[in-house]
Amino acid sequence: MLRASIAIAAALLLPLSFAHAEGPNLQDPKVKALVDELVVANHILYNQGVVDGFGHISARSPLDSTHFFMSRSVAPSAVTAADIMEFDADGAVVGGDQRAPYAERFIHSEIYKARGDVTSVVHGHSPSVIPYGVSHVPLRPVFHMSGFLGKGTPIFEIRDAAGAEPDTDMLVKTPRLGTGLAQALGKSSVVLMRGHGFTAVAYSVPVAVFRAVYTDQNARIESEALKLGRPQFLSEEEAMNAQTSMEKLSVRSWEMWKVQAASAK
Amino acid sequence: MLRASIAIAAALLLPLSFAHAEGPNLQDPKVKALVDELVVANHILYNQGVVDGFGHISARSPLDSTHFFMSRSVAPSAVTAADIMEFDADGAVVGGDQRAPYAERFIHSEIYKARGDVTSVVHGHSPSVIPYGVSHVPLRPVFHMSGFLGKGTPIFEIRDAAGAEPDTDMLVKTPRLGTGLAQALGKSSVVLMRGHGFTAVAYSVPVAVFRAVYTDQNARIESEALKLGRPQFLSEEEAMNAQTSMEKLSVRSWEMWKVQAASAK
Amino acid sequence: MLRASIAIAAALLLPLSFAHAEGPNLQDPKVKALVDELVVANHILYNQGVVDGFGHISARSPLDSTHFFMSRSVAPSAVTAADIMEFDADGAVVGGDQRAPYAERFIHSEIYKARGDVTSVVHGHSPSVIPYGVSHVPLRPVFHMSGFLGKGTPIFEIRDAAGAEPDTDMLVKTPRLGTGLAQALGKSSVVLMRGHGFTAVAYSVPVAVFRAVYTDQNARIESEALKLGRPQFLSEEEAMNAQTSMEKLSVRSWEMWKVQAASAK
Amino acid sequence: MLRASIAIAAALLLPLSFAHAEGPNLQDPKVKALVDELVVANHILYNQGVVDGFGHISARSPLDSTHFFMSRSVAPSAVTAADIMEFDADGAVVGGDQRAPYAERFIHSEIYKARGDVTSVVHGHSPSVIPYGVSHVPLRPVFHMSGFLGKGTPIFEIRDAAGAEPDTDMLVKTPRLGTGLAQALGKSSVVLMRGHGFTAVAYSVPVAVFRAVYTDQNARIESEALKLGRPQFLSEEEAMNAQTSMEKLSVRSWEMWKVQAASAK
Repeated sequence: MLRASIAIAAALLLPLSFAHAEGPNLQDPKVKALVDELVVANHILYNQGVVDGFGHISARSPLDSTHFFMSRSVAPSAVTAADIMEFDADGAVVGGDQRAPYAERFIHSEIYKARGDVTSVVHGHSPSVIPYGVSHVPLRPVFHMSGFLGKGTPIFEIRDAAGAEPDTDMLVKTPRLGTGLAQALGKSSVVLMRGHGFTAVAYSVPVAVFRAVYTDQNARIESEALKLGRPQFLSEEEAMNAQTSMEKLSVRSWEMWKVQAASAK
Repeated sequence: MLRASIAIAAALLLPLSFAHAEGPNLQDPKVKALVDELVVANHILYNQGVVDGFGHISARSPLDSTHFFMSRSVAPSAVTAADIMEFDADGAVVGGDQRAPYAERFIHSEIYKARGDVTSVVHGHSPSVIPYGVSHVPLRPVFHMSGFLGKGTPIFEIRDAAGAEPDTDMLVKTPRLGTGLAQALGKSSVVLMRGHGFTAVAYSVPVAVFRAVYTDQNARIESEALKLGRPQFLSEEEAMNAQTSMEKLSVRSWEMWKVQAASAK
Repeated sequence: MLRASIAIAAALLLPLSFAHAEGPNLQDPKVKALVDELVVANHILYNQGVVDGFGHISARSPLDSTHFFMSRSVAPSAVTAADIMEFDADGAVVGGDQRAPYAERFIHSEIYKARGDVTSVVHGHSPSVIPYGVSHVPLRPVFHMSGFLGKGTPIFEIRDAAGAEPDTDMLVKTPRLGTGLAQALGKSSVVLMRGHGFTAVAYSVPVAVFRAVYTDQNARIESEALKLGRPQFLSEEEAMNAQTSMEKLSVRSWEMWKVQAASAK
Repeated sequence: MLRASIAIAAALLLPLSFAHAEGPNLQDPKVKALVDELVVANHILYNQGVVDGFGHISARSPLDSTHFFMSRSVAPSAVTAADIMEFDADGAVVGGDQRAPYAERFIHSEIYKARGDVTSVVHGHSPSVIPYGVSHVPLRPVFHMSGFLGKGTPIFEIRDAAGAEPDTDMLVKTPRLGTGLAQALGKSSVVLMRGHGFTAVAYSVPVAVFRAVYTDQNARIESEALKLGRPQFLSEEEAMNAQTSMEKLSVRSWEMWKVQAASAK
């Protein structure tokens, strides 16, 4: 109710240019569609347990490929279109938007800079994935849904990127740390972050969400398979082939998760 | 609402023959009953965690025992009677239906061909079951609910069936691979698929669902029992006797799961 | 709707004596109260994951201490007061009631016969508990909520009770097998059943439910504690003292579970 | 309905002084705000699985720093503002309130006495945490969300505090046992209680809830990481830095959990 009142007040009192200043230009249909997709993605990631009160997803701007869109600092389950902000290539807020951004926006800015093929980045703290970032057991594709893990799941050691003061607060909250993370990611689709979580990247918002969800599921399955002993993983070619086939079908998961997330409210 | 409008429009505008062309003949009471059972089965399998956005269940046609019914390519949770298609003995779409079928329909066609006693086939990717397909620890009946596992749970190695190019995308999407899967299944009720999932078969839709759900539950229990050490499984005779007794009562589970799936919507 | 119609029809058409013949005499306030408690208990046990489509709870009759009440053969989540039947000391149906009883009613009849202190019996198949019935690791009280496990958790080996034909269907469906189970239980509160599940007993319906729920929880905690290594269990005296203290407070859990079960519908 | 009727009757019939006698003075805005926060905290802790029918959270009084507020003896999920009672420095009920308090209020009173920096105390029995209290594997910060564990997670052995009769009922229901617990806690944020559960403390209700939830999540992650082998924990400095950063953001979790708990009703 309060939120609605504020929204109405804003619509009546603020000139349009200022409204635009507070986030992406929703008048543009491509921007509007992408922002709506980001909102759904936030709710799906929460509903699927990839994020809780923390974690975020961004998308590269369709109007300026050096920019990206991401929510202001708020719990993913609560994100609405009005919460989406625009950032430039260095992770700086665009257009005089005064709202608080996520401290870890440099995860996103530095990956977009390093990886021209990436248009969406998910960062989360799935409990099942974290053990693989703090041990020496590699996370590997155990079934066809996670063929995208076949390119490797390197671990980002924040101490290595932190320089002279290696004891950080574990957050990637400077461009330097973001660069280190992007370097660790390399050409992979997923990078594990020691003592923190993971980041998954893709060429679309739905595929980034798909990879984040199945990274989590692969971790759970692999952990149980390791207890049985010596699991057989997909071969490199199997992983590549499975990735191609399954990601073509990922819209099926997206549509289902969208319905689930909406009905869970 | 939109879906309903489309349905009404279809009812008004399309000649009956064309409507029939798009799937099984719902005018036939036996077909209608089986299609309704398949729809419920899809929702139960989703609600019980046997399938997510992927996975499928089919049933042999009561009118032509070489044919079978299965949903078009859509998430199981979303399946309605209008989504059910009819396939022939080779997994080809019947009646000029232009909708996209599941790529893995050859799992079903080849099992129906090889196993005259089977009238329903479930294929899923339960996270608890996958470890048993990638390790060398057999999945065995650990309690009376899963006596049907007593006939063995062979592993289908897709590389063996793939021939000259063993690195597939892990999907059973050719008749040749389907034949290999049916051979691996043999006379068992469940076949594990390496790096992929499992397939359960039965003499009715409810019993196929029952076996799929308890395959998953047996896997979870066995994994914990193995950690305690040296679990005692059912003897061959115990498994056979328990299967006979419990499957007579499986309608009790079916009715409960049906209510659960409906109320979860 | 149908159910309601049948109930109304029954109320109008059937003589009262016949209505009584179909189950306990609900005209008696003590019987009515106990039957209502049994219905709630069925829903709680389902909601807490102790039973699924199978499993049952009974209570000793307040009018004839050799008799007991239990639902007809139906999923616990669906039980209503009209489903409760009355059984005699040998597990035979009382009063010409023609409905199908649970095959395993001899679990209950034989325990009531052997244990005068027991007024309620729960039988379930919690996935967490089953591993302790098929391994040689004892289920022991790992925290104050499960002090009732301090009297031991013997395993019932159905082969030992089955006599000349040891390969049963794992179900306790004869008086002989029930007697064997009651002997295995001895003076304990919980007996594990190899390859099947467990049975918990108590001096009231709410405490029987309490013990069943915390048997399950203790099993889950102990399994994780065993993986950490050499857990310290409650001493015999601690278990006894904790049981006395916590069971006095068990009504608090009962009231909470009752609300949860009702709101989960 | 009954509850409402009683509340109305109370409002009409009882003099204000007596109403005040039954709990904190809700006329005071600071007291009212804190009591409302405690109610929300109870529901969040239940919804997040930190407490079930048992467990409690308290807050230091803003009017008298030797006093604290906590619910009467009722399941956390059911707590309302009317259930909150006031206790003095020794855990005695204030103001002639005749309602039954939690037996374990001395956990709270003795910690408030020993730790001037603590204004909120949570006590729970999370199944994931209990194994760390009965084994010799330390619970340590495995990711940035649980930096507060960096100060150590000592184990309270109730036998050591119990004196001449070491076999207790495991409950901290005397001032002497509470003193022992507070001593074991020392300067840490979390103390594990052997065979019982854990207690988390903080400088605000939302942060105490945050620490309780992430103590549970850390335990689950660490247990899986230990199975992979030799997990790398946060360094002492990383833990301290992460704690500072994340606890500033803990309101984000609080707001999200509040919405979740409210919608779960």
